[in-house]
Order: sequence, then structure tokens, then C-alpha cells
Amino acid sequence: MGEEKNLVIIGGDARYIELIRQLQRIKGVNISLVGFNQLEQSFTSLKQIDFEEIEQNNIDVIILPITGIDEKGKVEVVFSDANIKLSKSWFEELPKNTKIFTGITNDYLTSLADYAQSDLIPLLDRDDIAILNSIPTAEGTLMTAMEYTDYTIHSSRVTVVGFGRVGHTVARSFSALGAKVSVSARNKKDLARIKEMGLTPIPLKHLASSVHDCDILINTVPSLVITKKEIKQLPSHNLIIDLASHPGGTDFNYAKKRGIQAILSKSLPGVVAPKTAGKILADVIIQRI
Amino acid sequence: MGEEKNLVIIGGDARYIELIRQLQRIKGVNISLVGFNQLEQSFTSLKQIDFEEIEQNNIDVIILPITGIDEKGKVEVVFSDANIKLSKSWFEELPKNTKIFTGITNDYLTSLADYAQSDLIPLLDRDDIAILNSIPTAEGTLMTAMEYTDYTIHSSRVTVVGFGRVGHTVARSFSALGAKVSVSARNKKDLARIKEMGLTPIPLKHLASSVHDCDILINTVPSLVITKKEIKQLPSHNLIIDLASHPGGTDFNYAKKRGIQAILSKSLPGVVAPKTAGKILADVIIQRI
Repeated sequence: MGEEKNLVIIGGDARYIELIRQLQRIKGVNISLVGFNQLEQSFTSLKQIDFEEIEQNNIDVIILPITGIDEKGKVEVVFSDANIKLSKSWFEELPKNTKIFTGITNDYLTSLADYAQSDLIPLLDRDDIAILNSIPTAEGTLMTAMEYTDYTIHSSRVTVVGFGRVGHTVARSFSALGAKVSVSARNKKDLARIKEMGLTPIPLKHLASSVHDCDILINTVPSLVITKKEIKQLPSHNLIIDLASHPGGTDFNYAKKRGIQAILSKSLPGVVAPKTAGKILADVIIQRI
Repeated sequence: MGEEKNLVIIGGDARYIELIRQLQRIKGVNISLVGFNQLEQSFTSLKQIDFEEIEQNNIDVIILPITGIDEKGKVEVVFSDANIKLSKSWFEELPKNTKIFTGITNDYLTSLADYAQSDLIPLLDRDDIAILNSIPTAEGTLMTAMEYTDYTIHSSRVTVVGFGRVGHTVARSFSALGAKVSVSARNKKDLARIKEMGLTPIPLKHLASSVHDCDILINTVPSLVITKKEIKQLPSHNLIIDLASHPGGTDFNYAKKRGIQAILSKSLPGVVAPKTAGKILADVIIQRI
């Protein structure tokens, strides 16, 4: 405490607007923004700088986009045309123990952070953030289902694949609106909880034989689980919504061949409720800095 | 039974496509369509005719749009440019006891039907239809709320005005997704039921003093209940969704003056779930013919 901290936000989507607003409220933090120059709304009292202007040796905290960086170090910037790449030499100049917040990490980012002895914090690895974040994800899934079908959620037959932090919330939300929800999971504890919730448990290995009358199939598992075998059994009017992170867990080519609509949903919290999603991130980041 | 019946559908929106599909399944009914000539999808085995070709003296059943006709007899046709007006002289030629289905009626339609001794059936006056129809209405309201706000339904403060067939379903749906729901109603029985449901009851006369922290205000009452007095108390980020039939129950001009977003939602079931909504109508119409 007492000392000023230098925080730089590099890239980010609509939910970062609320995040920035929340960060502005804390005292003793100098915020610089990189990659927000095309944002219509301007933040008074904040510095908008170019990537090249960042003085790495003077940074205490870095906030990267929720999507992190790609395997080549590229940072996705929504509100700018800037081409930003984080390289090994860039990391080299960071002070030790620089806090780096990201949504998710990958091998490239993890190894660079290790190398620079930074304190990397992948926010979506935290159960509390992931669970809170699953609320706007579930609402975005409902909205997607409403947009792409001509029948009600109520009374529709929905199968959710995976009962992790997102699958659980999605299953409960669809059920709360009157859908007939089945949930497919691997382990016995999950299958028991699914039953306790009044939903229909389906062991993952029996998924294919359980989807012949499924209206909406929602995947949350980040590996190929909606394969030809499952897609073959789906009725032709079925809608697949894949919530797993890129590239999803669906054989999209085969779904297309069969004429089944399959959507890979991306960053639903940022689309449907950027303010709530930004607040969720802000609460944890503020705690940690 | 045994005799063929002549049924003519004059106008209608997307939900009529499912209605027509369901009607085609029953035997002994000749269906003619008026006002569907711009529909891309064609119905095999059905006659598409012009309004002028209708032989009134040969009709057993007429199906009008859910919105009925206006006070000058005009029929709203979504899938055609035709200008269709039902006049007294047109009704004169109908056989006695012709069944006329409509969603809602007005003085003009009721008086013409009386004059022609027709059997007028306003479908939305029936509790069963209105309750089933409230399901897609509630889902459409959720979708509207998701589209127009940047926060989640979950944890938002929602006030529903009116606890009729629509208000009840809307309140339950928002509450099921985790919103903090208050419901404003006039009579004590309704206020007791609202409390039993775990929601916050607000006597209608106290509405204005209860909305200072309301995020989403949903009106279902078809008379002016969201007046200056209430709108003055709303926080500036509030969203008003008015579900009451045209012209709604909100002082839209005053809301605009205060910069509060107010939406008059129209025919949500036809937008969000035309297939389900069409099936609801079909089930009752088929029972009655």
C-alpha cells in the first residue's frame, strides 16, 4: 500500500469497459489502455497509449483479453486495428512477479510467463469466476436457442453434454423455463446430482442412443464428443449449440453434411451481459492487486 | 361429420404457417388461403385465392388474424400486399352460424358478427389459449430483456405490473432465471399468490414508490398504469417492456422525455416461437370445427 501501481490493459472486448470503470475507482493505480483507440466512449483521466509506448520495466500489473493470446503471441484487440504481438524479448523486460491476468492461457503464454518469472493468473481457471461467468453464458445460450428455433424452450427436449461449471448452470436454466432436460456426463457423482435435480442423467457412452428425439443439443465439453455417431441419431430439425472454447467439441463438417444447424458460440458473456461479466472480472482482479 | 367443410383463412402471421400445416391433416376440410401469396413456402393441395374470389355463401369457417381486424374492418396481411376490408355487406352474405375465429375482437367485428348471426370465437378470450400463449410471450420478453440490457437477467431487479395470465407466467420465468421479481397487482388474492411464489407483492397504488431501484419494468395491464408518476421514480438505466396490446399501458412520450428506453412489444409468440404458437391455436380450432 502507499505506493502507486502501474497497470496496463492490452486488448479486451465489451466487458472490459465495465472492468475499466471499476478499476478507475480504486486509488493508487495508474491505468494505461492499449488497443482501445476505436472505442467511441472515451475514458477521462486514463492514458490511451500505443503498444510500443509501454515501458515494461515500470509495470506492476498487465490485463490481457479473456481469450488470452494465440500460440504466436497475438493479442486479439476488438476496439483497435493495432497488430499486437507479445514476444519473448518483450516479456524479458518485465519486472519479476509482474501480475498478468488473462481469461485462459495456453502453452505459449504459460511458458513466457514462467520464463519472465511473472505471476500469471488465468481467471477462468478459478472456480468462483467460472461459475459466476456461467450465468451470462447460460442466458446467452437461451437467447441463441430462442433465435434459432421456431418453438419455445418450454417443453422442448434439451440434452446438455458435460456437467462442469457451465453445463450445470445451462441445464438448470433450461429446466427452469420448462424444458425437458437430459444431461450427459461421465462420472457417477455427476450423474447422481443430475438425477437429484430432477433431470435425466445419460452416461456419456450412451449419448448416441439417447438423442433420437432431442430438439436442442448443447455441448460444453472441450473435446470431440459430438461425433458422427451422435449426429447420425439426431432428428433433422435438431439445433446444436457448442459452448466449448475454440474449436468446440462438435464434428461441424458432418453436422453440415446432414443439414443439421450447428453453432459454435463464442464469448457469450461479452455479448449478452458485458456489464455483469466485466463486474465479475473486476471484483476478483481488484482483490488481487 | 361426413360433410365437407369449407374453411377460409384471411391473413395471419408466421404462426399461421404451422396452423395451416395442422389443419391440412384433418379430413373433410377444404382450405382456401387469402393473403398468403408472398409466402415463399408453398402449400401443396391448398387453394390460394384472392379476397374477391371468396364465395361467402359457401363458407363454414373463417379464420382471421390473431390481431383481428381494425375499427374500419381492415385485415392485417403479413404475406401479401392485398388490401382487404371486411364490410357489413360482405358479412351479409355469410350463412348463419358461420364460425369466425379471431385472436381478439373489437366493437366493429363483434357488431358485424352479431348482425350476420355468426359464431364469433375470440381465441385469446379463452383462458386455456391465453395461458399457453403466455409461454412464448414470456420467452420473448426474456429475449427482449437480454437484447436491450448489458447485464444478466439473473440478479436484476424486475417489476411486473399485472398478475393476469401473462403477468403470472412472465413473473415466474424471470424469477426462475434468478431475477429479483416484484409483482404489482390490485386485488388481495393476487397479492397473496405473489407472496406464496416467493416474489415481492406490491399493491398497484404503491407502484410509484417501489420502483426507484427497478432495472426492468414489465407492464401487462392494457390501460395507462405506467404514468408520469411511476416513470419519474425510475432509475435512468431502467428498461420498460410493455406487453399490453396496442397502444400499451405506458406514457411513452414521458419515458422518452426522461431518456428511459420503453418498448411496446407486439405479437412476441409469432416472433419467438411461431411453430409452438401456431400449434396452440390449431389444437383449439380443430376441436371446435
